Amino acid sequence: MTTVAAYAAPAAKAPLERTTIERREVREFDVLIDIKFAGICHSDIHQVREGWGEAIFPMVPGHEIAGVVSEVGPGVTKFKVGDRVGVGCMVDSCRECENCLRGEEQYCLKGMVGTYNALDKDGETTYGGYSEKIVVDENYVVRIPDGLSLDVAAPLLCAGITTYSPLAHWNAGPGKKVAVVGLGGLGHMAVKIAHAMGAEVTVLSQSLRKKDDGLKLGADHYYATSDPKTFEELQGTFDLIVSTVSAPMDFGALLSLLKVDGALVNVGAPEEPISLNLFSVIGGRKTLAGSMIGGIRETQEMLDFCAGHGIGAEIELISASEINEAYERVLSSDVRYRFVIDTATI
Amino acid sequence: MTTVAAYAAPAAKAPLERTTIERREVREFDVLIDIKFAGICHSDIHQVREGWGEAIFPMVPGHEIAGVVSEVGPGVTKFKVGDRVGVGCMVDSCRECENCLRGEEQYCLKGMVGTYNALDKDGETTYGGYSEKIVVDENYVVRIPDGLSLDVAAPLLCAGITTYSPLAHWNAGPGKKVAVVGLGGLGHMAVKIAHAMGAEVTVLSQSLRKKDDGLKLGADHYYATSDPKTFEELQGTFDLIVSTVSAPMDFGALLSLLKVDGALVNVGAPEEPISLNLFSVIGGRKTLAGSMIGGIRETQEMLDFCAGHGIGAEIELISASEINEAYERVLSSDVRYRFVIDTATI
Repeated sequence: MTTVAAYAAPAAKAPLERTTIERREVREFDVLIDIKFAGICHSDIHQVREGWGEAIFPMVPGHEIAGVVSEVGPGVTKFKVGDRVGVGCMVDSCRECENCLRGEEQYCLKGMVGTYNALDKDGETTYGGYSEKIVVDENYVVRIPDGLSLDVAAPLLCAGITTYSPLAHWNAGPGKKVAVVGLGGLGHMAVKIAHAMGAEVTVLSQSLRKKDDGLKLGADHYYATSDPKTFEELQGTFDLIVSTVSAPMDFGALLSLLKVDGALVNVGAPEEPISLNLFSVIGGRKTLAGSMIGGIRETQEMLDFCAGHGIGAEIELISASEINEAYERVLSSDVRYRFVIDTATI
Repeated sequence: MTTVAAYAAPAAKAPLERTTIERREVREFDVLIDIKFAGICHSDIHQVREGWGEAIFPMVPGHEIAGVVSEVGPGVTKFKVGDRVGVGCMVDSCRECENCLRGEEQYCLKGMVGTYNALDKDGETTYGGYSEKIVVDENYVVRIPDGLSLDVAAPLLCAGITTYSPLAHWNAGPGKKVAVVGLGGLGHMAVKIAHAMGAEVTVLSQSLRKKDDGLKLGADHYYATSDPKTFEELQGTFDLIVSTVSAPMDFGALLSLLKVDGALVNVGAPEEPISLNLFSVIGGRKTLAGSMIGGIRETQEMLDFCAGHGIGAEIELISASEINEAYERVLSSDVRYRFVIDTATI
């Protein structure tokens, strides 16, 4: 076991504070990673505050991890010391079910092992990226291409793949009209990626406050959902809408913006059930769907795609002592567009 | 104009009674059809009773029409006198929008012209199949193959295409597990067609009352949704679920029966909005969708498919004087599985 410094929430809803945790010894197929940067995802806050149900404490959040390999186990073939690597939302899965076998480990039938707030196969609590080092099986580690800086790459491990995966699955590309609902951590990545895929991109945001940013990020159009005229003007426009927001919305109104055979894919979601009239999907053979991160193979594909298109996240780099303040700012949507912790400051 | 006998509802919620209506003269591209059989669809009752909003009266329902061509206009090329033909839910559309141009006239952006309870392009009220004759543009008429009797073919024009279209669109076939929710007029066609497509078919019905029928129609398995064990046993089983019911249901529970990437497609729908937790589509990239009848080309494809597989509807043939009684029996789910009016009795 190796003792490493980390930032942890000692109990539900408690502020995060500096502490130490134990990392397991490097086993045959393990990679030891010196973490350089860790993104702050809205779901870190959900979990620290038990918004998604009972959680495990102390909790070291962080599933947007970028770092450098500092040791490898004897069986490791994919990585060597010095490699620039990333770890996302999962660090293991059953590896045997139909979903694992086709590279969709995020939908593992036995449940993926989360990077934090989970129990691994030995029953040990997993701890995330707000720490100096992490030990991960090489099959759940991805390579960060040379062209990408580690700081702006970190958020790609969750925000990037969460938006890339549905954009790829539902065929965003040339000739397709794609709308992105919400311009936050997920939304700004969706705009960059959909634009790079060649789609015509529209942002649907509550207000026009971030319009200049949206257009700079690659959006072709920008509309306010608070303006009823938006829904009149855009009726039947989109092939695909990716919704990144977790606030309650009028899903019937959003579905009305789709063409026939269009899909509204939710990667954010309100905690409470939504109300939906099914006629809004019947008339037009429309799809209301969801998508959750992406598999390891696709995460690598996303990183390669982003490197090829010069895409990183827009970040605000903070020191570890600023985490609690950053949480409050995330909750008030006051971040452009992702906080990333410089883990040298832990 | 030609005066023909028909059964009509003189006002909302009123019983249907014998009357006469005018049919237009046969125009250049028109086909005059001597109607032989007309199916009773649940939506006839919805419209007569204004369950879907304000309607046009007097109303002659009926959009499951099978008959024989008795006259053709000078420009008609697709049909000749004596041909066995069918008419479904629409008799015209704009023919110019992107959906019409790709043969999905049911999703016409200007709105298809319904076979009844609608206004045609001249502003005249359309009257449906509960009548002796109908005049329809040849582009909205389909051919009933020789192998199919007209009486069991009539319900294919709505119940058949409404279930065939989503089964085909979502790739029901060998190796696929398909569930059909509800074994009524639509459900029994879904079972027959999905079975003929080569899928493994499961019926999910409220009770096991019609189990013997379901298995005879082609289902491989039959479960009661009133039994909570059904939902435990079938977790993550299906590639596709086609729901034909309009009663309120637990959609989260139904979605839990899908595999990753599975689709729950609604062809029936509760009039009231449903409540849905979006996490039930996010975890497993699942689709909640809808589908509405099918285009003219696909309706012909469906009829050819049914003829090739010896598939007709299971019907109870009635005389026109029994229509009001039949409506009551449909409302109490007391029909196996479709009432068809012998229009010689009008």
